[in-house]
Amino acid sequence: MIYLDHAASTPMNEEVIQEMMPYLKENFGNPSSIHRLGRVAAKALDSARKRIADLINASPDEILLTSGGTESNNTALFGMVHQGKRLITSSIEHDAVLEPCKKLQRLGCDVVYLPVDSSGMVDLDALRNSITNDTALVSIMYANNEVGTVQPVDEIARICRQHNVPFHSDAVQAVGKIKVDVKESGIDLMSISSHKINGPKGVGALYVRRGMKIEPLVLGGGQESGLRSGTENVASIVGFGKACQIAKENLASNYERLKTLRDRLVRRTTNEITHVTLNGEREKRLPNNAHFTFLGVNGEDLIIKLDEHGIAASTGSACSVKTQKASHVLMAMGFSHEQITGSLRLTVGYGNTQDDIDKTVDILKEIVSDLRSVSPFKAKYDF
Amino acid sequence: MIYLDHAASTPMNEEVIQEMMPYLKENFGNPSSIHRLGRVAAKALDSARKRIADLINASPDEILLTSGGTESNNTALFGMVHQGKRLITSSIEHDAVLEPCKKLQRLGCDVVYLPVDSSGMVDLDALRNSITNDTALVSIMYANNEVGTVQPVDEIARICRQHNVPFHSDAVQAVGKIKVDVKESGIDLMSISSHKINGPKGVGALYVRRGMKIEPLVLGGGQESGLRSGTENVASIVGFGKACQIAKENLASNYERLKTLRDRLVRRTTNEITHVTLNGEREKRLPNNAHFTFLGVNGEDLIIKLDEHGIAASTGSACSVKTQKASHVLMAMGFSHEQITGSLRLTVGYGNTQDDIDKTVDILKEIVSDLRSVSPFKAKYDF
Ligand SMILES: Cc1ncc(COP(=O)(O)O)c(C=O)c1O
Ligand SMILES: Cc1ncc(COP(=O)(O)O)c(C=O)c1O
Repeated sequence: MIYLDHAASTPMNEEVIQEMMPYLKENFGNPSSIHRLGRVAAKALDSARKRIADLINASPDEILLTSGGTESNNTALFGMVHQGKRLITSSIEHDAVLEPCKKLQRLGCDVVYLPVDSSGMVDLDALRNSITNDTALVSIMYANNEVGTVQPVDEIARICRQHNVPFHSDAVQAVGKIKVDVKESGIDLMSISSHKINGPKGVGALYVRRGMKIEPLVLGGGQESGLRSGTENVASIVGFGKACQIAKENLASNYERLKTLRDRLVRRTTNEITHVTLNGEREKRLPNNAHFTFLGVNGEDLIIKLDEHGIAASTGSACSVKTQKASHVLMAMGFSHEQITGSLRLTVGYGNTQDDIDKTVDILKEIVSDLRSVSPFKAKYDF
Repeated sequence: MIYLDHAASTPMNEEVIQEMMPYLKENFGNPSSIHRLGRVAAKALDSARKRIADLINASPDEILLTSGGTESNNTALFGMVHQGKRLITSSIEHDAVLEPCKKLQRLGCDVVYLPVDSSGMVDLDALRNSITNDTALVSIMYANNEVGTVQPVDEIARICRQHNVPFHSDAVQAVGKIKVDVKESGIDLMSISSHKINGPKGVGALYVRRGMKIEPLVLGGGQESGLRSGTENVASIVGFGKACQIAKENLASNYERLKTLRDRLVRRTTNEITHVTLNGEREKRLPNNAHFTFLGVNGEDLIIKLDEHGIAASTGSACSVKTQKASHVLMAMGFSHEQITGSLRLTVGYGNTQDDIDKTVDILKEIVSDLRSVSPFKAKYDF
């Protein structure tokens, strides 16, 4: 099997699993219990929290543990924006931001969706012009999950600071792939997800800069300083911590490795297949993302054929596949229906080799050619 | 080590861990992905959901997977009760119900806290008298986490049905210990937590009877039929499913085994130590719970001494330990400050033996006697 869907979810690093095992077995205490087993669990949380903080240059007390990136985004948005206030976001956010936005609109908030250009870069002039005295939050993703475009987060943070507006960034796809430093960037709140960086599913974090006041989403026993109640998912948090430590240690080498694989994938694909474009920003882009449009074919058909050859790929966001909606990201980038239909996302990661890339391109050539030979657009493009 | 804090959290069953392993390793796909790895994960969710449903006699489509009991309670309360509406609950709920209640009050809801008697049984006349046309939900726990008292849930459900008011029950402590059948009982919404029944932490479920309209708490990619977004915690859900299957298969034998151990613990303790009472209902009680008051000693001191002897115990709710609040449950039951101070909860479970019980009582006798010999209440009680 060749797995090229690392933006959807990633395999766990073997060391991560090893680190989790004792907490799946003998160290099963509730971190709130005062007996030894409870203290062992509480201590494990402390060191995991430190590792998570270290990856993004935060302090451990600024890390709010959640059940994943989605909950982190919900916590940031519902925790910061209230009735009558403005929220500024972009039109290419993940549904875990956009759906809370829709609910906030129903609750009487004013939500502004900033436009993007054809490469998926957010319009900063539009941002500047949208900030009002009533603006409670700006939420703009660090890197896009479909096309991989990386936003000018430092510049956005600067604009927000100038206007005294808190800035949240959904960094689920960026963290672990490119350098993310909340202090240097001046980000106030930031979402992370463990299963996107070779950690376990069902755990994530929200960075909340010290001094930020945020209203909790999930209330109860008072865990996470009262900001996120519920018995902590100890083993998974330990795994998440280990994944963060590994990501930090290998950031530079990993970046190079992924970029080399991805660049080869892009080069060979665009050289050897006709009528194909790489979507998203060329330079300001995640190192692991390749997002193509193959004119005259249907991306879903491509995925199914690739799957038959043991290659895991995606059209874009995993979770929007079932709803069969056309990508709102590509629409916001001004793509035609045909360009959207022909899109395919390949994201490299842990375990991928150059051989994987070469095999994939070879098979892709074959599949695209087969599909095009029966495509209704055959004549139009003269394939 | 002798672990007698199974109400706080439980060790995982070895079979549960085995069942999870492939999903921590090779089967790491995102259930929303359409390739093979995605479908494998989606299928695993389906069978886990079926096992969870089976344990409580629900249908799989009535099971909403969450990050735990706390989130399940929050989802039920915030999803059902809105501004201007009444919510009726009890004064002995877990904080995962009481804290959402406080927030709902701040949001303009009218929350009624039903009183309980000295054994922790909710006053049903008070319930009948509290239901108004504006009542959006009745939320009463199935069994109490501190004293183990089991509420007359069928009767409560009947009252709610008569008045056409939805009934939610926090069954986190009841499920897996006693027979819980949502259909037979007529419960509309019910919270469960995996780590209380020898499954992994960080996963739970909310039973939502077919036809119930509930507003989601966490929004995004549309997982769980749009009622709970976020990439599913596949491995943990698989483990939860296995734990439910084991719990169902062994319900009767487990009940007998736990009750026998617990009864021995209660019998020996009350026979061999003076000035000790068993709190909570005698008969309508969880089979694994023993909750005592040892007059003239401090429960926290007891726990620390027991811990030094390798015995894990609790004063009551694990998560309220850190806040150092006196138990709201015991206060609602009319206990004096002194009775509350001297309380100790011992909860038996997976792996406990008769020998554990006997050793615990032997050590408890010693510790209580030592503590009482220096107690300021020494003269008062003539220990
Ligand atoms: C940009 C982005 N934000 C949020 C999420 C949601 O995170 P999670 O899968 O942890 O719920 C994802 C992934 O699905 C994502 O790609
Ligand atoms: C009665 C009751 N409800 C809810 C909870 C919270 O569940 P979880 O630990 O899964 O968040 C607990 C346990 O802590 C409990 O005992």
